[in-house]
Amino acid sequence: MSEDAPRTDQGAADEARDAPAAPTSSTTPRVQTSTTEIDSTIIHPGSVRINVKGAFIVDQDSASPSGTPASRPSYGTKDIRLPYHTAVVSHIAVDIGGTLAKLVYFSREPYSREPGGRLNFINFETNRIDDCIEFMNQLKMKQQTLNGSKPEELCVIATGGGAYKFYDRIRDVLGVDVLREDEMECLIIGLDFFITEIPREVFTYSETHLMRFEDQRSDIYPYLLVNIGSGVSMIKVSGPRAYERVGGTSLGGGTLWGLLSLLTGAGSFDEMLDLAERGNNAKVDMLVGDIYGTDYGKIGLKSSTIASSFGKVFRIKQEAEKGTECQSTDPTSVDDRPPPAADSPAAPFSSADVSRSLLYAISNNIGQIAYLQSEKHSLSTIYFGGSFIRGHRQTMNTLSYAIKFWSKGEKKAYFLRHEGYLGAVGAFLKRQPRNWGRRGSFEEGVGLGTEARAEAGSRAGAEE
Amino acid sequence: MSEDAPRTDQGAADEARDAPAAPTSSTTPRVQTSTTEIDSTIIHPGSVRINVKGAFIVDQDSASPSGTPASRPSYGTKDIRLPYHTAVVSHIAVDIGGTLAKLVYFSREPYSREPGGRLNFINFETNRIDDCIEFMNQLKMKQQTLNGSKPEELCVIATGGGAYKFYDRIRDVLGVDVLREDEMECLIIGLDFFITEIPREVFTYSETHLMRFEDQRSDIYPYLLVNIGSGVSMIKVSGPRAYERVGGTSLGGGTLWGLLSLLTGAGSFDEMLDLAERGNNAKVDMLVGDIYGTDYGKIGLKSSTIASSFGKVFRIKQEAEKGTECQSTDPTSVDDRPPPAADSPAAPFSSADVSRSLLYAISNNIGQIAYLQSEKHSLSTIYFGGSFIRGHRQTMNTLSYAIKFWSKGEKKAYFLRHEGYLGAVGAFLKRQPRNWGRRGSFEEGVGLGTEARAEAGSRAGAEE
Repeated sequence: MSEDAPRTDQGAADEARDAPAAPTSSTTPRVQTSTTEIDSTIIHPGSVRINVKGAFIVDQDSASPSGTPASRPSYGTKDIRLPYHTAVVSHIAVDIGGTLAKLVYFSREPYSREPGGRLNFINFETNRIDDCIEFMNQLKMKQQTLNGSKPEELCVIATGGGAYKFYDRIRDVLGVDVLREDEMECLIIGLDFFITEIPREVFTYSETHLMRFEDQRSDIYPYLLVNIGSGVSMIKVSGPRAYERVGGTSLGGGTLWGLLSLLTGAGSFDEMLDLAERGNNAKVDMLVGDIYGTDYGKIGLKSSTIASSFGKVFRIKQEAEKGTECQSTDPTSVDDRPPPAADSPAAPFSSADVSRSLLYAISNNIGQIAYLQSEKHSLSTIYFGGSFIRGHRQTMNTLSYAIKFWSKGEKKAYFLRHEGYLGAVGAFLKRQPRNWGRRGSFEEGVGLGTEARAEAGSRAGAEE
Repeated sequence: MSEDAPRTDQGAADEARDAPAAPTSSTTPRVQTSTTEIDSTIIHPGSVRINVKGAFIVDQDSASPSGTPASRPSYGTKDIRLPYHTAVVSHIAVDIGGTLAKLVYFSREPYSREPGGRLNFINFETNRIDDCIEFMNQLKMKQQTLNGSKPEELCVIATGGGAYKFYDRIRDVLGVDVLREDEMECLIIGLDFFITEIPREVFTYSETHLMRFEDQRSDIYPYLLVNIGSGVSMIKVSGPRAYERVGGTSLGGGTLWGLLSLLTGAGSFDEMLDLAERGNNAKVDMLVGDIYGTDYGKIGLKSSTIASSFGKVFRIKQEAEKGTECQSTDPTSVDDRPPPAADSPAAPFSSADVSRSLLYAISNNIGQIAYLQSEKHSLSTIYFGGSFIRGHRQTMNTLSYAIKFWSKGEKKAYFLRHEGYLGAVGAFLKRQPRNWGRRGSFEEGVGLGTEARAEAGSRAGAEE
């Protein structure tokens, strides 16, 4: 089971392993939907206006069915409750990347006494795309229970590369319309939604201050979005639909997962992150102090600065081999083809050390490139999204530190609690009228609610 | 034995494996040096003016003693012949980095009928620094034969981190003065020397044009030097001694050597480069086509673009494990702790594929960061130096391509035949008067020689 919530030392820890709602199969009473709404939804799939008044992140979830072992869907991201939305939603959105397929759908809450419903977030491994399609098929069959629409009325909005690669398969299996949306545009629409509509969504992170939620702002443009999935895309956003992919790097999550699966034998990303948590990168990284024996003060490089990631490994291996040849007292013994980093106390470094080093290397590198791109394009705000982050403390801390270090404290890294779902949420919303949502509601003079939940805090009330 | 010469498909190939001169132990006749010169050298160690008139790179070397197996020094870089230099040189220079110690010294040519001598280039692994010190000790003992000075007159100019870390050891073993010089300054002095003084030293590289020597230019500033050793330093140079380290990355040569020694079992960098030469990175890298099934034309990403380095590995490993569990027909079988990439035909990917992928990833990444730094600092000329490059075709091609790709063809990557010795040569020259050298000779009205060798070509003649 994955953990997408930021792990921090303050309070958030108890929120980290909640299981989000998944559809249940029982038929239950639901809030009535008018025939007009249903018709409108059928004619304009996905064009229903979502009422996000009072939307908030569900931190404690009572409904917690777990996925079947076979399909292994990955839960963990907090649902978003929309207490005032009662209209039929007959579309689901899926963002199919190289490694993960992220799904977003709306559901009523059959057991809740309150009206409204929630946005559900769930992901599948892309190489188990059939499980994802089967899950969508189940949603389709439950459409009537969930939302009041008929199964055949479902529409799938798909984005990401898999929207093209698996287009035929999704359409054939589900027998429904599949609409494809551009990946970058969806990311931006999703991010704009999270920034402007969802309280306690955006935060900064540092070792000293840990997780700090950001006050909402009206002038959100321009900004740089760094989306870290298997690979990394960097997108300059200058207005609501004005964006340009300015760069990226192939050294992303897929690189970490791939290399660590070879080097440590870890079978899941969570296992890798747990390893990294315990490791000491100085066992494998060559630090400035290893080369100089001291700081390189003249150019401001501290003794603890990483000069070369994995820079010690080649030497360690050579010395180990030399030791084997010469029967020296070197405790390490390696074959011609050495095994992955061993975890015995005698080994010069462990799987944990390797994991931490690579996590640092990848995160630092993304941070530096993001900073340089932000400089080139004069952007002072940098958002980090994508499934690589997973609310992992070290990852966020390294990215934050890199931005702070390179910008000499002038720029900040911002994170999101739904960081992996920007594209899926964007796809979900893509078919909405432009003025949907909190700001839209406000502009339209929709009555200000006083029901803003405690979780949303005073800020949410103020926004409305 | 290493290969530092650019491997190309045109002509240069036959130059690639020549062995440079190393000091011989026999006593042989030498060109006479005046007592005044000797005295001057003793009083001002290293301050002798080097006469580089007609200097050229020795492409075919008759003297080829090989290092003893025990010391395993790495030869390969072409010596530079200084046909008119006859003064005593009583200093040697060493640049001790995290992985390699690079040594530069001058020697007369006992067997040659021509006057003058040559600059010799040799490197040692830093973890065998005692071999390097012993080699310097041998040079010291042979000083009289080599250069006419007495052993005790030798002076060592040291730079790089090891100049600090091994300072006491070098001084104690050799019993000579050790002068330390700043690493970045030496790199720049060395590079300026190679750019301005040595014909056929600087070149561009591309798949279509292969190796193309650059015309010399008088306005060499400003430029960006990207020095790739174990780690990477990027230095902005705006004038003869005006430089600033603007950035760098820990993902450098040490990362490639370290990770590949773990992943492939290769025991030397040359073995890794040979592997990379044969590999297919598409076996392990996730390409845009793997995600989209096609191009992502809207943002100009080709189907063959690498979206995620090693992005396929995690999935392959999972599928292999699943195959083992379920007795599927998947030909791959891996343990809980998988061995390094296997080379059997049935394996989904080989050590060669892994090597090529990582070489691409590291080189591409350095290229992108170099480009972004050049943009930030408005530098249009980018030189790549350091022992990582080793004249390796794929490495140079990837770096060149990255600069061309990111700059949309507006910037070029320049390489050097002595790329690994910038710092050592800079240290060697640091103690010279500022106006030494070819340009210095010209300014001082030293007679123009007509002996410019064929290798130097018409360009060299024109400069003089």
